[in-house]
Amino acid sequence: MDSKLPGIGTTIFTRMSALAAECGAINLSQGYPDFEAPEELREALARAVMDGHNQYAPMSGLPALREQLALQLQLHRGVACDPETEITVVPGATEGIFCSIMASVRAGDEVLVMDPSYDSYIPAIEMAGGKAVRIALRAHSFAVDWDAVAATLNPRSRMIIINSPHNPTGAVLSEDDMHTLERLAIEYDLLVCSDEVYEHLTYDDLPHRSVLQYPGLRERSFAHFSFGKTFSVTGWKTGYCVAAPALSAELRKVHQFVAFVAVTPVQQAVADFLADYPEYPARLAGFYQRKRDLFCDALAGSNFRLRPSAGTYFQLLDYSDISTATDQQLAEQWTRELGVASIPISVFYPSPPGLHYLRFCFAKNDATLEQAAEILCGI
Amino acid sequence: MDSKLPGIGTTIFTRMSALAAECGAINLSQGYPDFEAPEELREALARAVMDGHNQYAPMSGLPALREQLALQLQLHRGVACDPETEITVVPGATEGIFCSIMASVRAGDEVLVMDPSYDSYIPAIEMAGGKAVRIALRAHSFAVDWDAVAATLNPRSRMIIINSPHNPTGAVLSEDDMHTLERLAIEYDLLVCSDEVYEHLTYDDLPHRSVLQYPGLRERSFAHFSFGKTFSVTGWKTGYCVAAPALSAELRKVHQFVAFVAVTPVQQAVADFLADYPEYPARLAGFYQRKRDLFCDALAGSNFRLRPSAGTYFQLLDYSDISTATDQQLAEQWTRELGVASIPISVFYPSPPGLHYLRFCFAKNDATLEQAAEILCGI
Ligand SMILES: CSCCC(=O)C(=O)O
Ligand SMILES: CSCCC(=O)C(=O)O
Repeated sequence: MDSKLPGIGTTIFTRMSALAAECGAINLSQGYPDFEAPEELREALARAVMDGHNQYAPMSGLPALREQLALQLQLHRGVACDPETEITVVPGATEGIFCSIMASVRAGDEVLVMDPSYDSYIPAIEMAGGKAVRIALRAHSFAVDWDAVAATLNPRSRMIIINSPHNPTGAVLSEDDMHTLERLAIEYDLLVCSDEVYEHLTYDDLPHRSVLQYPGLRERSFAHFSFGKTFSVTGWKTGYCVAAPALSAELRKVHQFVAFVAVTPVQQAVADFLADYPEYPARLAGFYQRKRDLFCDALAGSNFRLRPSAGTYFQLLDYSDISTATDQQLAEQWTRELGVASIPISVFYPSPPGLHYLRFCFAKNDATLEQAAEILCGI
Repeated sequence: MDSKLPGIGTTIFTRMSALAAECGAINLSQGYPDFEAPEELREALARAVMDGHNQYAPMSGLPALREQLALQLQLHRGVACDPETEITVVPGATEGIFCSIMASVRAGDEVLVMDPSYDSYIPAIEMAGGKAVRIALRAHSFAVDWDAVAATLNPRSRMIIINSPHNPTGAVLSEDDMHTLERLAIEYDLLVCSDEVYEHLTYDDLPHRSVLQYPGLRERSFAHFSFGKTFSVTGWKTGYCVAAPALSAELRKVHQFVAFVAVTPVQQAVADFLADYPEYPARLAGFYQRKRDLFCDALAGSNFRLRPSAGTYFQLLDYSDISTATDQQLAEQWTRELGVASIPISVFYPSPPGLHYLRFCFAKNDATLEQAAEILCGI
């Protein structure tokens, strides 16, 4: 059949992980831990399955889980929310993001996206019939260019998508950023789709700022969270979306016909684990900061320029002093020839921005990181 | 916000299961077993989780699982297929169906749907920008009215959705039906979205006929299957779609941005279970036929008219001799007053068809079925 989506290829994550496997390369491309999730969490899932939590959960999620998630938001963000009308458990934040876009973007609506942008946003906007309006983050700092955003907003602007901590750059939005966003969102009556899946991974005492903490944003935002990132179980594909009741109602209309419901025993396991270890997510920042530092320190003598990542489990390396090749060429070449796979960030722009960065995932065992750094130091 | 989807309410399954819970009613509404899945399967999931199958699977599914699924198709249907290019594992058949529609239906395309139709089809068509053209199944037999289908087909017709064994009626397509479908699909160059999630549940030695078994349909069909139904684990939300390479490629373009991937340990568990028990699905027909017969026999002295279901785990009861109320009124009233919840089938039509049927799920313990039948005999 001739394609309805001729512009869409296979995601870079699938391609690079496949190439890494083919070449036997150390895979620092796709973002997932190569170490185990907490044993208590895995045991909780095994128990849920053996104890009979194997049939459909309610469409918006197990009540016991939504209760725990409301407690988490209170504990970590000081945010109050009603589990019944404001929290929807979803089969991964990708599905939550897709549904929030599909539920609110109409034919011809404009949606603002900052590049480099996670690769599911644009196809979701286009599938909803909207028009993605793409604005580049500032080169090198990867800060939002709010002047460019303001100049782009107009009455057709329906939604803005933000992502902090930011994949793939590791940038984190500041208090000023949030206030500017709040002001513009109110002025242009925008919805906000906020991808906060790396919420617990910010470093050097930088706080994560959630849209849920700003009154002007609270009522007009879909905030998306992921168990995969927080509990080191990317393969469990479960997350949640927090939004005001009116927005949650619209999200659920779509979600119920897209995937209907998330996996029951996973939901039960996370509920049980959070009841026992509510403080667990607060440990992540220290855990991953140590890994970031280990990786960055090991690269100190290399020819890469680097600024330590402020958040996420990704580290950009600037190879300007090493090569003038494109990042896509280098990512492939180094996977094949050196045995270290990374993600070229130019694929997250509408056209290659002429930057020289590769993204490396440091959610890996120390030995893996040391081995990769040793190879990279030889370049 | 004003709704983009003003016509969409909460699915009947969510509403009836919530009402049943509220009233403490026996829940024969939403389709799910109230008995446990095979212990070996649950143990396989517990093992997968403890053994470290907790990170992202490849986007189209774990290779080991797709191999087993290809063997299943060979074993149970005599169908050959390439696991790499023709099988995509999805987080539930609902997502698979959504993606196959979203990948192929363009603005203005017509999609033929037979009523009563599963409630996710129409919203999926509309979200894709298509136009659902609805044709009622013949009253009482619930056979496809192929003359009406043929009269409706035209150059704008893009896809036809079929569902056999049929939810909610239990009707099963015959060899003649399949040949007519094949002829029309070729003549009008239609894609076929075939919902076969109840494939293993046909009774009285009636075979299930898959679109994959008919050469003219094989190349133009998306066939959707569900582990939830086959392994009594509706809460595991995992299934698969089989389609020719060109169609699978289009499906995957959408799937990768809608949910990206299904849950890894569930995939591993089903792969392990199928390797050990490849014949397991063949047992289901006998298992459920006994339950259907138990339920129907227990209703023999009731005032309902019934024709035993030919497939699925649903039994329609005709209440024409009992009440002139609408099925929606009765479903609610009997849940509240008698304590037995069912599904009114009129919600699956564009407007109530004036039929007098309620749908009861018999995927329940014998004691549950006997208790429900006793109450229903008192009406
Ligand atoms: C959806 S697979 C990719 C995981 C990820 O989010 C990333 O590597 O950026
Ligand atoms: C998706 S929940 C409903 C389960 C089901 O398919 C049914 O009851 O018909």
